[in-house]
Amino acid sequence: MDGSPTDFGSAYRVLSGAVIPRPIAWVSTHNEDADNLAPYSFFTVASIDPPIVVFAPVGRGDSLKDTPRNAIEHGEFVINIVTGDLVEAMNQTAATVDSGVDEFEHAGIEKAESTVVDAPRVADAHVAFECTLHDTIEMGSSTLVFGEVVHVHVADNVLTDGKLDTTKLDAVGRLAGSQYATTRDRFELTRPP
Amino acid sequence: MDGSPTDFGSAYRVLSGAVIPRPIAWVSTHNEDADNLAPYSFFTVASIDPPIVVFAPVGRGDSLKDTPRNAIEHGEFVINIVTGDLVEAMNQTAATVDSGVDEFEHAGIEKAESTVVDAPRVADAHVAFECTLHDTIEMGSSTLVFGEVVHVHVADNVLTDGKLDTTKLDAVGRLAGSQYATTRDRFELTRPP
Repeated sequence: MDGSPTDFGSAYRVLSGAVIPRPIAWVSTHNEDADNLAPYSFFTVASIDPPIVVFAPVGRGDSLKDTPRNAIEHGEFVINIVTGDLVEAMNQTAATVDSGVDEFEHAGIEKAESTVVDAPRVADAHVAFECTLHDTIEMGSSTLVFGEVVHVHVADNVLTDGKLDTTKLDAVGRLAGSQYATTRDRFELTRPP
Repeated sequence: MDGSPTDFGSAYRVLSGAVIPRPIAWVSTHNEDADNLAPYSFFTVASIDPPIVVFAPVGRGDSLKDTPRNAIEHGEFVINIVTGDLVEAMNQTAATVDSGVDEFEHAGIEKAESTVVDAPRVADAHVAFECTLHDTIEMGSSTLVFGEVVHVHVADNVLTDGKLDTTKLDAVGRLAGSQYATTRDRFELTRPP
């Protein structure tokens, strides 16, 4: 079958169903009233040097939710990586709560202080990227939020010889709808010369 | 352990090792000399309405490889989704070949004509997005290539009631280095109200 993106239920459905598995940016921010924490899976690496990551929340301007709005207004945020032990907690932070509600407290998640930025990080996250806002670009129905990674936390239990070991990380990916995939069913391909 | 991104081997290593699992854009393009085909895993959805996807090849200007250069110069490309049956073929197209070499022929991959754009698509891909160039943004060491999805192909065997069924798709994600993960080890989380 072929057709326009909207011929397959909706453009959202065919895009979010095919561009899988997606890494999950569990983004923590700080504002005057509360700390916010929410997951975003339109997320990737934008540049290595300088190190820049990007997440793309739906919405623009006033229609943005607290987390991207805080990130833009305060110019900083933390991206916590979602792993098997944290998926239930992550899912709790996908709930819609009032603006003044602290989503760490709402979901019973322990905070830790960041080193460089004011936004807190998830204490139990095995990897956390402290980011300063690099740029913001409104595109279509979304806003791209680019962060320069200025400080990195990696738990000792996912390091091998001082380097991050993805086989120990147990990262989780987003599929479509309410479906997720682990990274436990792995294989290796040797890149040709 | 915490520190700057380069304290963990390299910024590339810690970013590509933590932002996982990554969907793979297997990008096909056309130029005067040959058709090109190469995989990129810094790839996500940028907008739903209009439907825009983005991939972020390393390089800028003259240092870009054939595939992103073709996409930018000709203003169109196709993103083929990588599934379990296509990973070996995909890996063959990660080889570095001379500019005039047709990467479909080099890797023994069958082409199919696209419907709207001139770039060919991978005949055996279960999902292919025909894209027109929406925008190009140089950022740090990379170039972000944004494509508007103008036409979609979905194989009948991954459709359920006319909609893409991710449980049938068997999409593959990129981890770090030469490691990949299937989407076969799945679970479901019901989003809280």
